[in-house]
Amino acid sequence: MQVTLQAQDGGARALSLKLAHSEVQTPVFMPVGTQGCVKALDSRDMSEILNAQIILVNTYHMYLRIGIERLKNFGGIARFAHFDRSYLSDSGGFQAFSLNKNAKVTNEGVAFKSHIDGSKHFFSPEYVLDIQYALNSDIMMVLDDLVGLPSSEERIADSIARTSDWAQKSLIYHQSQKARGLGLNNNLFAIIQGGVNEHFRTLCAKQLVDMGDFDGFAIGGLAVGETSEQMYKTISFTTPLMPVNKPRYLMGVGTPENIIESIALGVDMFDCVMPTRNARNATLFTHFGKINIKAAIFSNDQSPIDELCDCYTCQHFTRAYLCHLFRSQEMTYYRLASLHNLHYYLNLMREAREAILQGTFSAYRSSFYALREMEIPNNEY
Amino acid sequence: MQVTLQAQDGGARALSLKLAHSEVQTPVFMPVGTQGCVKALDSRDMSEILNAQIILVNTYHMYLRIGIERLKNFGGIARFAHFDRSYLSDSGGFQAFSLNKNAKVTNEGVAFKSHIDGSKHFFSPEYVLDIQYALNSDIMMVLDDLVGLPSSEERIADSIARTSDWAQKSLIYHQSQKARGLGLNNNLFAIIQGGVNEHFRTLCAKQLVDMGDFDGFAIGGLAVGETSEQMYKTISFTTPLMPVNKPRYLMGVGTPENIIESIALGVDMFDCVMPTRNARNATLFTHFGKINIKAAIFSNDQSPIDELCDCYTCQHFTRAYLCHLFRSQEMTYYRLASLHNLHYYLNLMREAREAILQGTFSAYRSSFYALREMEIPNNEY
Repeated sequence: MQVTLQAQDGGARALSLKLAHSEVQTPVFMPVGTQGCVKALDSRDMSEILNAQIILVNTYHMYLRIGIERLKNFGGIARFAHFDRSYLSDSGGFQAFSLNKNAKVTNEGVAFKSHIDGSKHFFSPEYVLDIQYALNSDIMMVLDDLVGLPSSEERIADSIARTSDWAQKSLIYHQSQKARGLGLNNNLFAIIQGGVNEHFRTLCAKQLVDMGDFDGFAIGGLAVGETSEQMYKTISFTTPLMPVNKPRYLMGVGTPENIIESIALGVDMFDCVMPTRNARNATLFTHFGKINIKAAIFSNDQSPIDELCDCYTCQHFTRAYLCHLFRSQEMTYYRLASLHNLHYYLNLMREAREAILQGTFSAYRSSFYALREMEIPNNEY
Repeated sequence: MQVTLQAQDGGARALSLKLAHSEVQTPVFMPVGTQGCVKALDSRDMSEILNAQIILVNTYHMYLRIGIERLKNFGGIARFAHFDRSYLSDSGGFQAFSLNKNAKVTNEGVAFKSHIDGSKHFFSPEYVLDIQYALNSDIMMVLDDLVGLPSSEERIADSIARTSDWAQKSLIYHQSQKARGLGLNNNLFAIIQGGVNEHFRTLCAKQLVDMGDFDGFAIGGLAVGETSEQMYKTISFTTPLMPVNKPRYLMGVGTPENIIESIALGVDMFDCVMPTRNARNATLFTHFGKINIKAAIFSNDQSPIDELCDCYTCQHFTRAYLCHLFRSQEMTYYRLASLHNLHYYLNLMREAREAILQGTFSAYRSSFYALREMEIPNNEY
């Protein structure tokens, strides 16, 4: 991966990442394409209508639904789903835990049963890379050991020890593949764990950065039960520990406000199911805050979702029509709402990037909160 | 409505219908937009991707979901759904019956309870026109009294007597509206009932045609339990009773084979939920017959649904990907499958029309069956 730091504005950064399938401009939001598609949308929606550059795909789901051999036969996820840009694949560890009550972690990896048919499986650091090679994603994530918050110091210490050990194993395995001429287009990111504890985050970050050869670093284990304040504080003491010349990815975050604050703190990449999941639950994002489109107040409202939005849905359909479709349980609603919410997130990133390039990110952040009639958070942590 | 008979080839006809919102070329298939959208699709899909000229909207659903006053405020269904072409609205009678076990027919109309909230409603011939004026559909259907098949002669005799009486009332009401300068853009079609009985069909057709001022005529009450042979025979003795200078609409039919045979027998217009409903149940139409996309045989098949198809779905996605999406219960599947099946139906009509204009419909019909490896039905009834 070729990384160019195009601009820095306070803590906020604008990078260009040259990947095998596309060039990704940061700050970037990655829509979540769980099982090989972003829910309710197809790859043409992603490229032609939304102009998304990179999609996150869940390794766990693609492994159970398709498997390594078939993924290889299909030529990877991008060819299978006919999306000719980039994918980042997660490690599968999070789903192996969250979809299986009885998943077991050992020092070797994670044993779990399929949520589909109950069959037994085992994810080791090396095996999740094998799946990701088959996916042929532009960015692969190492297997990590994540903890919910709040958590005991002992459990967090265990988590970062195992996370570092697995990261080391992943790196060795990836380097051995590359030595054989394989996986040359598949970049590998490490994941910093450590809860909201500065000591543990620092320890974990140093260990991973000292390994040297990761293509990027992620902050994992946030937005798992802590307050926004705790999250921002953790990000603020973690990003300075991450190399300036490599992308920084905050996993699974978050609200538009979370993202704006994290950009200010030096994060480059984001993913979250929030825009698509909220869309399906009738919550739509606007420049002025969220609205609940199923509310009676919208049933006769012939304006678009957001007067400042130029998305496919806002160009063609009214709040009244969307309210009707939602209440009538029409599938059509889900695509239109998902297109709008994803456009909102992707556009937020494009606007933030433009502001960083212009050196006006602070003013952009102020106007972001002013339109919402919210106070700007104090980000002196 | 201005009707131009552009070509006749055997019994098959090619008309041009100049309507308020668009010009419709026949033979035409009307996708069913039940509750203000064709299931899983939006109006841009219908116009830009599928190039559909006219959609059927269910008066029953729009009445219960939106109501007359709100439909008027929205400026009718075309503006509400942002589809700038034509709609045909049904009378609502069929749903009032089929969605309510205890619906009651009297000589005045149909009393029924809402399937949504149990509230009581009454459809008279005049009231269903009031709803359709509010929908501002280009073509409105009269309320009729339909019977399932097989049915007693007595019940069929009742049905055609009531159907004729309601048609007369509808016509008088519509003419009184037009005399006041209202409903000038809303064409009114009558519906011929009579089961599969030539005597009753003839009687009903004569009564309705003698009323003189309908803009078109429909054949109702078929595809309700009779054999294909019975259906074709009924169409074959009914179309000669219908005016040559007005469009002929076969309601709720049917399979591609049904449609090709009915075109040969002089039918111009069709609607059916089959392409969209079958799509949702994994049945996809091809030039070579139907396939069940969830079958294991397709899970590794990297060809498109139909090698001869140039639809959105076939251009971009494989059978293997669609099989995966269906099995993974992804909503994305439903739009892609619905787009394909509707394209198949709409393209069938465009091909049939082209053949009629060229005077080669008989050869087209032969090749239609040859590709399916089916024998051509004997249509000498």
